[in-house]
Amino acid sequence: MTKIAILGIGTVGSGTADIFEDNADVIRKNTGEEVQVKYILCRRMRPESRFADRIVLDFDTIESDPEIRVVAECMGGVHPAYDYAVRAMKAGKHVVTSNKQLVAECGLELTRLAREQGVCFLFEGSVGGGIPVLRPITRCLAANRIDSVYGILNGTTNYILTEMIQCGKSFAQALSEAQEKGYAELDPTADVEGIDACRKICILADMCFGYNVDPAQVRTQGISAITSADVDYARRMGYRIKLLGRTLRLPDGRVTAYVAPHFVEKENPIVNVDGVINGIVIHGNAVGNTVFCGPGAGAAETGSAVAADILDCLTQPLSRQPAWEPQPEGYFMDADELPMRWFVRVKADLGGIEAAFGNVHFVSIPGADPAEYAFPTEPMSAKALAEAGQGLEITAAYRILDE
Amino acid sequence: MTKIAILGIGTVGSGTADIFEDNADVIRKNTGEEVQVKYILCRRMRPESRFADRIVLDFDTIESDPEIRVVAECMGGVHPAYDYAVRAMKAGKHVVTSNKQLVAECGLELTRLAREQGVCFLFEGSVGGGIPVLRPITRCLAANRIDSVYGILNGTTNYILTEMIQCGKSFAQALSEAQEKGYAELDPTADVEGIDACRKICILADMCFGYNVDPAQVRTQGISAITSADVDYARRMGYRIKLLGRTLRLPDGRVTAYVAPHFVEKENPIVNVDGVINGIVIHGNAVGNTVFCGPGAGAAETGSAVAADILDCLTQPLSRQPAWEPQPEGYFMDADELPMRWFVRVKADLGGIEAAFGNVHFVSIPGADPAEYAFPTEPMSAKALAEAGQGLEITAAYRILDE
Repeated sequence: MTKIAILGIGTVGSGTADIFEDNADVIRKNTGEEVQVKYILCRRMRPESRFADRIVLDFDTIESDPEIRVVAECMGGVHPAYDYAVRAMKAGKHVVTSNKQLVAECGLELTRLAREQGVCFLFEGSVGGGIPVLRPITRCLAANRIDSVYGILNGTTNYILTEMIQCGKSFAQALSEAQEKGYAELDPTADVEGIDACRKICILADMCFGYNVDPAQVRTQGISAITSADVDYARRMGYRIKLLGRTLRLPDGRVTAYVAPHFVEKENPIVNVDGVINGIVIHGNAVGNTVFCGPGAGAAETGSAVAADILDCLTQPLSRQPAWEPQPEGYFMDADELPMRWFVRVKADLGGIEAAFGNVHFVSIPGADPAEYAFPTEPMSAKALAEAGQGLEITAAYRILDE
Repeated sequence: MTKIAILGIGTVGSGTADIFEDNADVIRKNTGEEVQVKYILCRRMRPESRFADRIVLDFDTIESDPEIRVVAECMGGVHPAYDYAVRAMKAGKHVVTSNKQLVAECGLELTRLAREQGVCFLFEGSVGGGIPVLRPITRCLAANRIDSVYGILNGTTNYILTEMIQCGKSFAQALSEAQEKGYAELDPTADVEGIDACRKICILADMCFGYNVDPAQVRTQGISAITSADVDYARRMGYRIKLLGRTLRLPDGRVTAYVAPHFVEKENPIVNVDGVINGIVIHGNAVGNTVFCGPGAGAAETGSAVAADILDCLTQPLSRQPAWEPQPEGYFMDADELPMRWFVRVKADLGGIEAAFGNVHFVSIPGADPAEYAFPTEPMSAKALAEAGQGLEITAAYRILDE
């Protein structure tokens, strides 16, 4: 009987504990392991919980118990999660987490500490919730040079955009419904402004390209400025608007990463990934595109990934741990330098538009602002777009994903 | 420097050899392994091949060379693939394969032999080509009780159906184009009659449910009888026809598996998986639905999976190998007993149809045979459908996937 501890009894913590309780037989059958959740660290006792007898209020109890082989950090945030992860590894315990902020901000240091301590630090649940994606990258695609990764990494924003696209709702209306349904937090900033997706694309960039990318380097644009007119223009042009995190290796070897709404074409493998579902496209130089879709959040869903990490710690410790190096000088390219086609809405006269963008093809929708022109540009960087648009009133600019 | 041998220099064999040659640096970076293809077993010398210097004509050379740690079987068919796999494992070498016929027919025995010999027998490439799917099942979903798996498991038939649906081509026309493009064999039987998909669904059933399913038990229906009228009826009803392999666990614990064309609704996560792409939906009791899509065939694509297996043999030998047990008495349910809704086309008078199927809702398309009625049935087993249809001329019957 292997003993583990879970830090936090929120959504993921309780979901993970439930899995080891409810799926004990299938886990034994699949892995030969009998895993018991011995402690759950909480801020207060929870007499109402099915795990009331396991709850402890002090991390020392977990840290100092030699029986505990794995600590599952399910608290979220960097502190005290980081401190507990460090103390657990220094106490010789494996650590798993679904905390994307912790991994995105401290993963370089924590994966190194894991190597030094000879323990595992795994975080499958930090990207794509329950979707198997990190392990497929490190294992199944190990013979590939990965060239690009992009995806719908945040279910809240995908739900809001889906409602705007399919039901013609406004952003505000779709957001408040998402909040009623529990898909969005009362303070939705981290989701709707792309901060959550930014953390996830950083982790994917770290793992796929081998060098640390700091969330602070990653241009991050959310969906709060998207209007029904943008949705209609996209439809008119045969696209759908999706919030994508994207990281790619450039021909010169540099890597860039960013989060932004994109016009995505109808043929794209994740354009129909709707609602709270996440979808990730990974391009390897041997396999080409592989696509992973599924629930990006949820108690049992993310708990499934955390539990898988725990079982891997026990059954294959130290086999090919995820790890990456500090970012070398000149490695990261600001995404504002990445040339792409753009969809833009501009308030200006035709002469000014032609002078700035050349001979463009205008797109029109019923009920559009008569003072405004909309059109796709030639490929240009965000910097070039801003320069070209000087003196014009650009009311909207979205990247067009041409792949 | 680790030495391996590849059996066969066909599509997958050469694709795998190319990957170790062309991606050597990324493989070293990702896994720390330096892998050299020392031998490639062929029936004749190949002076024109980039690997001419590695080609051997006699398996004994490989079997008796203690330097060879992994043998990658890429020949296809059961003999001599089976014999070489057995001899390699008995010589203490790991064996990997993408040969679905070998795994579907002999996997029970070969996985057991691997355990006895303390070597790996891995076959990620045997299902879904380059798509990571078997390892995600055994590792990432290890904490889940898997309830059902279904998917588009054959690219050739999916290409043909896509052409029929999107371009209105006939089966014969789409098939001959697939043959011209190299997507279909000159003898397309194994693909178009569902035999290839049957082998893959057997492997998925073996791995997901833990007991051996024999291809001979699996009802297998191909796509050669599908007409343009069927395609039009499906469209009229809001479905698309896809050839699915499907296996599921029934409430009473029994397992069934079958291959058949299905009417798939527009909201289904793989309904838009078109052309030669494969797509697989796995339902776990914790994670819910996870979806895996990508190239189901191809040299570099399948080679990517074979190479990943080879690297796993070297970096994590003996950690949780795929394995299953012999099928217990009463375990397998004939898919003809599985109740589902059906789309049927019947030549009969209305009275006869109502007597047989009750008060059904008829579907009509332009240019339909006036002597024929088409409608969806209530859920019923194939047996019940056959009984109900006695005395009526049922011209087509397809399962409707209601999930």
